[in-house]
This record gives sequence, C-alpha cells and structure tokens, in this order.
Amino acid sequence: MADINSIAKQFTDFYYSTFDTNRSGLQSLYRDSSMLSFEGAQFLGAAPISEKLTTLPFEKVLHKVTTLDAQPSSPTVASLIVSVTGFWWLMTAQIHCSSARFSSLYLRAGVTTYTMISSVSTMARKLS
Amino acid sequence: MADINSIAKQFTDFYYSTFDTNRSGLQSLYRDSSMLSFEGAQFLGAAPISEKLTTLPFEKVLHKVTTLDAQPSSPTVASLIVSVTGFWWLMTAQIHCSSARFSSLYLRAGVTTYTMISSVSTMARKLS
Repeated sequence: MADINSIAKQFTDFYYSTFDTNRSGLQSLYRDSSMLSFEGAQFLGAAPISEKLTTLPFEKVLHKVTTLDAQPSSPTVASLIVSVTGFWWLMTAQIHCSSARFSSLYLRAGVTTYTMISSVSTMARKLS
Repeated sequence: MADINSIAKQFTDFYYSTFDTNRSGLQSLYRDSSMLSFEGAQFLGAAPISEKLTTLPFEKVLHKVTTLDAQPSSPTVASLIVSVTGFWWLMTAQIHCSSARFSSLYLRAGVTTYTMISSVSTMARKLS
C-alpha cells in the first residue's frame, strides 16, 4: 500500500501545483481517450481537456488538499484510483473568494509517467 | 452518455437508499477483491467491507446527493466510474447533526448486477 500512496501523493502534488502555476502543463497527463468531467460538462481528449482547463474564467487559483485516498482499480492492470478533496481559493481582481472544493481523479500509473484515464472535478460547486 | 448516466443514477439511488435503510444489503455489491476506503482506513473483500459499514457508530443516517458524475473508466471494458457528492445527516439520540459529505464510488456494471471494484468514502470529514 505504501507504494500506491506514494505514487498518489506525488501525482497529487504535481497535479495541483501545475494547476495553480501553469495549467497548460496538465495536457501531458491526458491521452486522446481521456475524459474530464468539469462541473457536469464532459470533455474528451487531451486537447479539448487542456483547452477547458486553460480557459477557465479565472487567472489565479490556490488548492489546499485535505484528504487523499488511493486504491488499486484493477486486480490485473497496474492502475489506481485517487480521490482527492479539499478547498480552493480563487484570486481575481484582488477579490479573495473561498469555496469548498472536492474532486475525484482516476489515473493509470505508467513506469515513468502518469496518464489520466478519466478525472472528475466538481470544484466550483459549493457544498455549504 | 445517456445510458451511462442512467446506470449511474440507478446505482446511486440504490446505494444510498440501502445505506440509509438496510446497510447489510450493501454487501452484495462487493466482491472479494473489492476495496473500501472509509475515512482513510482500507477494507478488502465483501465481508470486511460489510462488517465496517454495518458497525458504524450510528443507527440512522440520511443522504442527500447533490452532484453525480459518470464516465467510462476503460475504452475496452464495460466499466464506469461514478463520483457522488452531497450531504448526510446523522440521527442519533434525537440529536440532529448535519455534516458536509463527499464520496467517490467506482464500479463495474454487469448486465444485470452492479459490482463495486473499489469505493472511496470520505463522508465523516467535514469540509467546513
């Protein structure tokens, strides 16, 4: 389990630091059959997913991960499911706006690269 | 996509209504290789998962699902990932207790049955 948790932690650190500083860098995580669900809308393929992520209507965002769970997602294939929850803060026009955030990510871990098969984000919907 | 969303909706309705009224009925959804993460602890196999779910320290709970996202989780195998978020209310000793809740569920859908490969619940950790 330690290895899975380590991979999940590495992935999560990379994903959110890249999201917060250089969203276009996330494209390399996706393949053409990858799917992103973002606020109920679905995007298929690395290019459309990257376009969505890089054209979100805010410039600066800061993620704070509070829970991280990792599991093998198949008994036969080297893949895992990672569930992440936490908060995010938007920074637009010097307005500080906080929002409850929760997201779920699913990825296959290759030998040296991470490839997202699917990811689900429900980040902007406030829980409370 | 309609079919996947319909399956996910059926599954979610069944899962949470069973959770709220007859938790032991959830065991049939799991197989021996299924894994449940619950509040950071992991349980492998249908029997240990069911034991965990049926011995949670509360008797009554009511779930309210607020978001539901479904995606295929493989281009080759009939399987899907379902992400559910919402609230839950605990009812113990007539104390009304509300808590933000979020969970992520992953399942393979068979022809007539649902089998959970893995599920991640982070229900009791409050977001705010």
